[in-house]
Amino acid sequence: MLSLKRFLIGRPLKSNELGEQKLNKTKALAILSSDALSSVAYGPEQILIVLITVSAAAFWYSVPIAIGVLILLLALILSYRQIIFAYPHGGGAYVVSKENLGKYPGLVAGGSLLVDYILTVAVSVSAGTDAITSAFPSLHEHTVIIAVIFVVFITILNLRGVTESASVLAYPVYLFVLALFILIGAGIYNIITGNVSPELHTSIGTPVAGISLFLLLKAFASGSSALTGVEAISNAIPNFKSPAPNNAAKTLAAMGILLALLFSGIVYLAYYYGIIPNLEVTVVSQIAEQTFGRNFLYFFIQGTTALILILAANTGYSAFPLLAVNLANDKFIPRMFTVRGDRLGYSNGIIMLGILSIILIIVFKGQTEHLIPLYAVGVFIPFTLSQTGMIIKWIRQRPKGWIPKLIINATGALISFIVTMMFFLTKFTQVWSVLVFLPLIIYAFHRIRKHYEAVADQLRTTTCEPAIPIAGNIIILPVAGMTHVVENSLNYAKSLSAYQIIAVHVPFEREDEGLFEEKWSKWQPDVRLVTLHSPYRSIIQPLTKFIDTVQRKASESNYQVTVVIPQFIPKKGWHNILHNQSSLLIRAHLLYRRNVIITTVPYHLKK
Amino acid sequence: MLSLKRFLIGRPLKSNELGEQKLNKTKALAILSSDALSSVAYGPEQILIVLITVSAAAFWYSVPIAIGVLILLLALILSYRQIIFAYPHGGGAYVVSKENLGKYPGLVAGGSLLVDYILTVAVSVSAGTDAITSAFPSLHEHTVIIAVIFVVFITILNLRGVTESASVLAYPVYLFVLALFILIGAGIYNIITGNVSPELHTSIGTPVAGISLFLLLKAFASGSSALTGVEAISNAIPNFKSPAPNNAAKTLAAMGILLALLFSGIVYLAYYYGIIPNLEVTVVSQIAEQTFGRNFLYFFIQGTTALILILAANTGYSAFPLLAVNLANDKFIPRMFTVRGDRLGYSNGIIMLGILSIILIIVFKGQTEHLIPLYAVGVFIPFTLSQTGMIIKWIRQRPKGWIPKLIINATGALISFIVTMMFFLTKFTQVWSVLVFLPLIIYAFHRIRKHYEAVADQLRTTTCEPAIPIAGNIIILPVAGMTHVVENSLNYAKSLSAYQIIAVHVPFEREDEGLFEEKWSKWQPDVRLVTLHSPYRSIIQPLTKFIDTVQRKASESNYQVTVVIPQFIPKKGWHNILHNQSSLLIRAHLLYRRNVIITTVPYHLKK
Repeated sequence: MLSLKRFLIGRPLKSNELGEQKLNKTKALAILSSDALSSVAYGPEQILIVLITVSAAAFWYSVPIAIGVLILLLALILSYRQIIFAYPHGGGAYVVSKENLGKYPGLVAGGSLLVDYILTVAVSVSAGTDAITSAFPSLHEHTVIIAVIFVVFITILNLRGVTESASVLAYPVYLFVLALFILIGAGIYNIITGNVSPELHTSIGTPVAGISLFLLLKAFASGSSALTGVEAISNAIPNFKSPAPNNAAKTLAAMGILLALLFSGIVYLAYYYGIIPNLEVTVVSQIAEQTFGRNFLYFFIQGTTALILILAANTGYSAFPLLAVNLANDKFIPRMFTVRGDRLGYSNGIIMLGILSIILIIVFKGQTEHLIPLYAVGVFIPFTLSQTGMIIKWIRQRPKGWIPKLIINATGALISFIVTMMFFLTKFTQVWSVLVFLPLIIYAFHRIRKHYEAVADQLRTTTCEPAIPIAGNIIILPVAGMTHVVENSLNYAKSLSAYQIIAVHVPFEREDEGLFEEKWSKWQPDVRLVTLHSPYRSIIQPLTKFIDTVQRKASESNYQVTVVIPQFIPKKGWHNILHNQSSLLIRAHLLYRRNVIITTVPYHLKK
Repeated sequence: MLSLKRFLIGRPLKSNELGEQKLNKTKALAILSSDALSSVAYGPEQILIVLITVSAAAFWYSVPIAIGVLILLLALILSYRQIIFAYPHGGGAYVVSKENLGKYPGLVAGGSLLVDYILTVAVSVSAGTDAITSAFPSLHEHTVIIAVIFVVFITILNLRGVTESASVLAYPVYLFVLALFILIGAGIYNIITGNVSPELHTSIGTPVAGISLFLLLKAFASGSSALTGVEAISNAIPNFKSPAPNNAAKTLAAMGILLALLFSGIVYLAYYYGIIPNLEVTVVSQIAEQTFGRNFLYFFIQGTTALILILAANTGYSAFPLLAVNLANDKFIPRMFTVRGDRLGYSNGIIMLGILSIILIIVFKGQTEHLIPLYAVGVFIPFTLSQTGMIIKWIRQRPKGWIPKLIINATGALISFIVTMMFFLTKFTQVWSVLVFLPLIIYAFHRIRKHYEAVADQLRTTTCEPAIPIAGNIIILPVAGMTHVVENSLNYAKSLSAYQIIAVHVPFEREDEGLFEEKWSKWQPDVRLVTLHSPYRSIIQPLTKFIDTVQRKASESNYQVTVVIPQFIPKKGWHNILHNQSSLLIRAHLLYRRNVIITTVPYHLKK
């Protein structure tokens, strides 16, 4: 077991090796932007899918819509840049909203992002798996298992630590960027040299019958789904090399530029080539085919696209555990999420993310496409909240030069809010469930916090009455027979200089009672034996009743009752099924139901 | 939970109510013969299926073959009658073989019967379910789940106690007997009054081309599968009202007579009507249809047949737990099978039988027909062994009138042996697996027995050196912080008048160390604190190392090391996931890996 763990995730790291687990900008860009960059593979297509419902002539609208998306991108990048410097310890939307807007807006942001990262993993791995099974149709019936294997693989990679996963994952991300730049470059070269007929598309500004503002907003909202993942860097600042905020801000800028170039390039080529969205072949694939034909470059682009879709999941793995630490430190989710694993990553968060996304993949049988709008709305809610939080912050604090900062965040907040509303208005059937699960999640957060507060109250030594010293001990020893195990436990009980030791025997048959008592008085004449006949063949019931009686008397004079339970430990694991485990049952029952101290005296079997 | 259990299986019974849980002959006949009687529904058909491979003209051989089966039945009934009187405490083939032939033949008989009862349940419930889904084809795709529900139902009925299940199950069994008597009576009336043309069949003695001794023996072996279940009464003698052996013997005789009448009646009608076996419609169904047409009586016969097939499973439930008790008392299977449940049945045996047969049904997707030969051979092996055991017994003991007894058992042994061989020779492809799993089961029996013997050796006080009195106690108390829980545990530790108390703190960060020590010396100046810095963030590892060091020193002067672990018990179950359960982990690790005593001091949270 241990060596398998070592093999999969590597040797444990010391806490002071944490510094070596920090990311430089190149690696950080790779693992934190894979989600955002991968959306280039489907974002432009989403716009065209909405426009085709009017006619192919409406495709020219994709250009102004893309410009709108780019403006939104610019506003988000600038806004998040300000968040990074204002909150250099990470936590992103959750921390910003909590500090400036209050607990519940913070929880709304945190809750939607937590769920969102799970969706990110499920959706992107499923999409990548689809791309692979489309290329190899014989794999199609194994989609779910392939997707699950990818999730397990990415989970293990992340358990190995953030630098190690970044080293592996950087290559495919940069290859994808390279592939798309080659595609866009070749495409523009073809257009300039006149290799592509300009008659393929309607020119910009052509009037189109049936176009409506609602439709254009819907197309804009769909295109904006390409911006999911932009927030990831702000959550993961602690993973950057020092000076973390500066490095994070530079990485964010680089990501913004790459995303803008790739997105506008693909939208423009799709428009100029007059690409019509198609269930069978993606828009990027169509552009690549028309540019290169089905040669090596085409397959290079297809392959890196499939890879980046799968690796987009990794952004979730970088951001989820850190967000979980923030929520757990504030006691809204279980404390275990704050524990660093062997490799210094927050392994419980990583594992939980893996498990939950595998469950999603299995439940949806790998068909997670219709979760995309849900996932987009789950990002734009925290976008809106965090920008609004920043607005409040600037107004309250009014630092030097706050007005331009306010304008940037206000623009970001407004556009994010409009996009969020667009999702609710235009895709309500796909996103309504947010309105159900968000309140549920927030209620759970609230309950968990309440429990931790109650516990802290009860444990604080200052608020409790000091414990009364114990006057003496009464030891109860359940005995099944007169064996060496019992002798051993008795021997221990005697060494505790207790006030009284009572051996308790529970016979099922009346006739066994006298015989046992007689034998006992010969074997242990100085230890008092109580026999409790149990007509219903239960050991726990009469024992509990007896302990209650003893305890009632003991507590009058401040005596403490201890139950000493002999337990033998077999040499091999399978031997356990050969024994009735009554020790464990008695222990669990008494510990949870009664206020007695339980002492387990192990007896290790040697063969 | 408790009230659901009460509802399903009824209130617990006192041990002295056992007498009321005994069966009278009418009920015993119903629940112990359902397996044997149900085989009338398929036994005759099995003969015809073999004969049809030659030609329909060969069907007349079914009459002499049936006579052979009846002779075998007579021999078995008489033999088992003698076993009942010789071994009035039940245990049947296992006990007889073990006592007269030795341990391994006993285990072969016991092992094959254990497996056989599991097969009985799976095969008969599947067959009954098939009969139902044939009548209602829309249920066909739910065969497995229906069969599982029947098994669960019969399991619960048996957990309620043997008399209660007998009261419920007696009706359908007697209804089935009644239905078949009506059928046979009406059929014979038709034959006598000449309503059935005698030209439907070849007369007995007609030469048939292609018939061979091998084929006839195969048909005989197949027909003998109708005798499975004859042994059940000999296993279940303790369930009878006193005088148990006499009542059991009378019940056995009644069962033999009923079985003989029904079996010969069906074989004769099938022969006279010239019934040809058919995959779609059973032989009994064809006879019923030709006798009555598709009227009420036809459906009555079909319905009771389906019921008896399902209830045949109940024979397994009566015999398996009692056989398991015998094997468990001899320490060949886990001791838990000897424990009586709330309703005085051996509930662990009943539950285990239910679970294993459900697994079989699920694995074979409800298609258990091809397990029938396996199941038949699993009965004839113990038949042969038990009769052989009786031969040895008579020869050894030579009681008054032993020679006729010897002859009866010798005849039984010989025929059973021949039938067993027939199965191996004619159906090897279906029964070879017996030769694999029987040795495996016997090996498991052997290993379990060896373990129990080793344990008994180690526990016996007489064979061990007496325990050395403990000179004093050293108490180690792992502390996570300075809370009320720790104070509580320390308070307890102090009351034990130990030689030394050592509080142990495991900080993950160097800087926390000094601070904690300083605070501690103010809070508990008289308790020694040891801090163990854990760079790898493991609590268990440094703690174990420290305990090892302390223990090495302690054992030199006969001191005992006790680890006192504070554990807080949340008020509600779900709160447990909010706490890191390190107490449980530390306890389990130390108890199983080290020879230290673990004392758990519970701290019950009040809210």
